[in-house]
Amino acid sequence: MSGTLSPGESTVGFIGTGVMGAPMAGHVLAAGFDVVVWARSAEKATGLLEAGAQWAETPTELAARADAVVTIVGYPADVEALYFGDDGGGDGSLLGAARPGTYLIDMTTSSPALARRIAEAASARGLRALDAPVTGGDRGAREARLSIMVGGEEADAHAVEPLLRAMGTTVVHHGGPGCGQHAKICNQIAIAASMLGACEALAYARGAGLDQARVLESIGAGSAGSWTLANLAPRILAGDFAPGFFVKHFVKDLRIALASAEELGLEVPGTQLAARLYETLLAAGHGEEGTHALYHLYER
Amino acid sequence: MSGTLSPGESTVGFIGTGVMGAPMAGHVLAAGFDVVVWARSAEKATGLLEAGAQWAETPTELAARADAVVTIVGYPADVEALYFGDDGGGDGSLLGAARPGTYLIDMTTSSPALARRIAEAASARGLRALDAPVTGGDRGAREARLSIMVGGEEADAHAVEPLLRAMGTTVVHHGGPGCGQHAKICNQIAIAASMLGACEALAYARGAGLDQARVLESIGAGSAGSWTLANLAPRILAGDFAPGFFVKHFVKDLRIALASAEELGLEVPGTQLAARLYETLLAAGHGEEGTHALYHLYER
Repeated sequence: MSGTLSPGESTVGFIGTGVMGAPMAGHVLAAGFDVVVWARSAEKATGLLEAGAQWAETPTELAARADAVVTIVGYPADVEALYFGDDGGGDGSLLGAARPGTYLIDMTTSSPALARRIAEAASARGLRALDAPVTGGDRGAREARLSIMVGGEEADAHAVEPLLRAMGTTVVHHGGPGCGQHAKICNQIAIAASMLGACEALAYARGAGLDQARVLESIGAGSAGSWTLANLAPRILAGDFAPGFFVKHFVKDLRIALASAEELGLEVPGTQLAARLYETLLAAGHGEEGTHALYHLYER
Repeated sequence: MSGTLSPGESTVGFIGTGVMGAPMAGHVLAAGFDVVVWARSAEKATGLLEAGAQWAETPTELAARADAVVTIVGYPADVEALYFGDDGGGDGSLLGAARPGTYLIDMTTSSPALARRIAEAASARGLRALDAPVTGGDRGAREARLSIMVGGEEADAHAVEPLLRAMGTTVVHHGGPGCGQHAKICNQIAIAASMLGACEALAYARGAGLDQARVLESIGAGSAGSWTLANLAPRILAGDFAPGFFVKHFVKDLRIALASAEELGLEVPGTQLAARLYETLLAAGHGEEGTHALYHLYER
């Protein structure tokens, strides 16, 4: 196969059907693509199978049946295990099992360095790897309104665009392999600072004896305004720390951001501070809460 | 005089006719209030005088003629000098010159402690002091769309609301004297973090070899989105560091925030970091640029 992916013609394999992957795969199915899924826990795929997706017994079986494989899993280590397997890209891995010409699209937020390694190995095997992490959260995934940041060969990015547009409204190609991950790091850097600002503003409000909800009314609409203040600050005030986006995953993202910044020789003191605070939060047992649980550190 | 301020009946004195005060006074005039102005440099008031405002030769003459005095000047020291004068509130000061019952409304971003001192001294003289700093920037001032954060007696806040509504769309009473300033500190805390995040995201994008404008396209609309990313990041990319809001004034605001947080026993590490960076920026000679000039620190 070659060329642009098309509904009705192309088969898309989905690995990872969690809070993000499941609705994303659902939109791809609804757009008319054939969809094959594999998930570590099969019950997570039940809804997709009922909607018409097929089941693959293993990731490699899935890869062998697909024109494009989408991976959206937890951590870079999971990505590495899928793509390279135990034997560095042999039969038990996506890289070993995919047919020549297959697109391998990692939508996990992962490291730019790993994305480059995958792209090199893929290219050597006649495969086409892209990194395409997303922003927009579970809600963006459910509403097919994700912003998708693509790294890889331009022709490949163009070819998979019909698939990506089934899941997102903003699809931007940022450059060669790893550049999608780099753009996602920019996103996480901005989010981390925003959350820090929201938590400190709310903590200050409480400390000064103000009504926090009235403070949000005053500051939310002006030049301090942000998605975080509008969407997460009210949850903080309601004591609702359910994810949203897991602290444990955000810690992973910030570790990737700091490692990559160091590799590039960049100083990002705000991100360093945020990473330190989120590591503290994780160590204190808040990994399963949403990122706005950062506020707990300011309650002590 | 007593009770609610009304267009056609009440005279409003304006001290400070800079980039914020001039359009604000213009809106008050347009709403039908009689307006008297004084400014250190008389030519700054020319437009207002042509529009029908009257001129006062001194702040005390202005205070003696007004039912409400609005001050919006640069620094807490300027506020203190106006309200207390050289003699601690004697004839040469607003507190000494205002007629009993006059509303004294400080819209400068100043310290909560100073606001409380003014309110105490005002109360002892039969005057009504309010702190009412604003957010929304020069554009909000021009468009009468400011968010105004009010501290002081509730009845007084209610009485001046018709005047404040001539300048802003969001008017919220946050509590007793100083609480408007406290709410404004929350605003500046959130803005500082937002700016830090925008600058680091853009710096990372450049360091990673990405097209910064494309990164903004990807991250601006999602959960990293903020007023800062939407409005100031594009100016950074255009190399346009004109204020907007002066670095020198923002440093003042952050100093007030840290002093007040310390007084309240609050830890605000993100704000501390931002304050450190802005002090560095000021020391490097960028005080007359806009707050987004923080990006200069990331260009080195």
